[in-house]
Amino acid sequence: MAQLLTFLGKGGVGRTTIAIAAAKKLAGQGARVLLAAQDPSPAFGVLLGATPSGDPQTIEANLSVVQLQSTLLLEKAWEEVKQLEAKYLRSPTLRNVYGQELSILPGMDTALALNAIREYNKSGLYDVIIYDGSGHLTELRMLGIPETASWYIRRFRQVFLDSDLGQAISPFVQPVTAAIFNTSWSFDNLAEQPTNEANSLLNDGKAAIADPSQIAVYLVTTRDRAAQAMAKYLWGSAQQVGVTVAGVLLNSSEGAPSSEVSAEFAPLPITSLPQRSGDEWQPLIDALPNLRETTNAPKPLSIDVANRQVRIFLPGFDKNQVKLTQYGPEITVEAGDQRRNIELPASLRGQGVKGAKFQDGYLIVSF
Amino acid sequence: MAQLLTFLGKGGVGRTTIAIAAAKKLAGQGARVLLAAQDPSPAFGVLLGATPSGDPQTIEANLSVVQLQSTLLLEKAWEEVKQLEAKYLRSPTLRNVYGQELSILPGMDTALALNAIREYNKSGLYDVIIYDGSGHLTELRMLGIPETASWYIRRFRQVFLDSDLGQAISPFVQPVTAAIFNTSWSFDNLAEQPTNEANSLLNDGKAAIADPSQIAVYLVTTRDRAAQAMAKYLWGSAQQVGVTVAGVLLNSSEGAPSSEVSAEFAPLPITSLPQRSGDEWQPLIDALPNLRETTNAPKPLSIDVANRQVRIFLPGFDKNQVKLTQYGPEITVEAGDQRRNIELPASLRGQGVKGAKFQDGYLIVSF
Repeated sequence: MAQLLTFLGKGGVGRTTIAIAAAKKLAGQGARVLLAAQDPSPAFGVLLGATPSGDPQTIEANLSVVQLQSTLLLEKAWEEVKQLEAKYLRSPTLRNVYGQELSILPGMDTALALNAIREYNKSGLYDVIIYDGSGHLTELRMLGIPETASWYIRRFRQVFLDSDLGQAISPFVQPVTAAIFNTSWSFDNLAEQPTNEANSLLNDGKAAIADPSQIAVYLVTTRDRAAQAMAKYLWGSAQQVGVTVAGVLLNSSEGAPSSEVSAEFAPLPITSLPQRSGDEWQPLIDALPNLRETTNAPKPLSIDVANRQVRIFLPGFDKNQVKLTQYGPEITVEAGDQRRNIELPASLRGQGVKGAKFQDGYLIVSF
Repeated sequence: MAQLLTFLGKGGVGRTTIAIAAAKKLAGQGARVLLAAQDPSPAFGVLLGATPSGDPQTIEANLSVVQLQSTLLLEKAWEEVKQLEAKYLRSPTLRNVYGQELSILPGMDTALALNAIREYNKSGLYDVIIYDGSGHLTELRMLGIPETASWYIRRFRQVFLDSDLGQAISPFVQPVTAAIFNTSWSFDNLAEQPTNEANSLLNDGKAAIADPSQIAVYLVTTRDRAAQAMAKYLWGSAQQVGVTVAGVLLNSSEGAPSSEVSAEFAPLPITSLPQRSGDEWQPLIDALPNLRETTNAPKPLSIDVANRQVRIFLPGFDKNQVKLTQYGPEITVEAGDQRRNIELPASLRGQGVKGAKFQDGYLIVSF
């Protein structure tokens, strides 16, 4: 299993440069590294000093690079969808639609990238995957897919089954599907069966996001005020998708970070990095910390069943920016332009929230 | 009808700063301006020197600012979906799902932003809307929604109607729907009716994207090589969504642009802009060109029915980076990690492509 490392920060702070330096450093230490770039433009190759493509290429010992291309990835994914359909349906409907004619809708880039990373991870060829993504909210939406998509499936499956429409169609669906499907689905498992494969993928994804030894994020900023405001916002927002933020990289900055910056991002470790000049990578590589050491970072979420408490880490927000609501078996936390629906363990499920307080950057909910 | 102006370029080149300066300049000239920022973080407020919110606020004469918040927009949109459902279905299924529990999936941010901009435009309150978006491919995917979504609806509606599944369900659908829907839909118009409202929105969107007096894009770059490579790539990619690129803004740069840069971006007008320092906006505002003058820019697509030719502007790509295919009544152009499916006029539809050549940045297809 590879470890995925990625960087969040305002555009122009040097995320891509740091991603390249980190890949070089880890490869130099003997880890098998894949550097995967979301940007399909030639700008990435200009920074890298090489011409990557849509398939991984080895550019140094232990270091492969791939430039993700959504059009290519969509073609491959479409073939898999067609095969899946052909497996379940006796008479496939999609065979006359070709991957080569499909255009890219918003959101597809990140969903396809996440799937590609999953497959590179599964290949066993890499110890570390460094993902140079969009670096801000769009990337957090991507990391949130497993949890968010699970929630939508869970919620709307129930809505459909409960609906008059679902009930009315029910008696008709079984004979029809029995006539055309190979397997004999009933109405109830019709909603379940095709999502099983998806569900297990999503559950694996949720487990990976929650485990800092599998996925960790670093904040990148400079001394610029807007860049620091963005990094702080992304720190809190990252907690909302349940991913661990392991440290801060203060780019284009010599010497120790100011006490002001240290206070802003406490308790995260902060590392100052020199600005890269020309083709000289070594000073930047030398200055990078051990990015694979991620276990001391604060956990986004912890549930204390004995004390009937849920603790949600939300640094950078104050209590007016956080909204807590409860619908049915879940609680919903709104902050940083994201909502997180938290499934409660059996012993807390269905119980009313008794109290909530905001303390030292933690939202503490009691049941 | 407002004119929408937006800026594309690599992170850190100063797009947001230029968007703010452009908004101040046009408002100062008497146009009613809305500045809409996609970034929900406090970084935008730091650059602006004000604290915007999710509803438009007037910060200077003629100048309103809004910071788009996807969670808010999704709540509003969900209420509209529920109302639409209640209009068509006697027994609504969605009433127990609340906007306040919906989390954000990838792609929603841009779709919601596009819809918000459409509504601000329709309000009649603004002459110019300046949209400070993600500035790269994600933003182009957003501008491509009307054309891409129309294609998916057109293509998959036909697939469903032709399928054995569609045919097999057909006799059952009418009695069921007649029993539960107020209107008596037949199977054929079942696929059509609920998409009519969407189709007319998408057609309006397509017309707006294709009209530079309604929507125009500017490239922003600095003298940095990676930033220029990105700007050039976005120029070609913007043609693939059919939007007009009206000029180049060369930021942090005094004096006339070099002949090298002028050659790279010919025939676009290039304007050098001074770097903004401190809170002094005036030099930047003074240096900006008239951004509303967009009519001389090259057209992304022209179809010459008399000469049986389709001309597609694709600057920055060479012929090895462009793929042309033909499926049924359409041609598909692949370039810049996007596919564009071009509907042909009646006289060219269903005719085989006779030849294609790449000349002066144009792909010229003959029938």
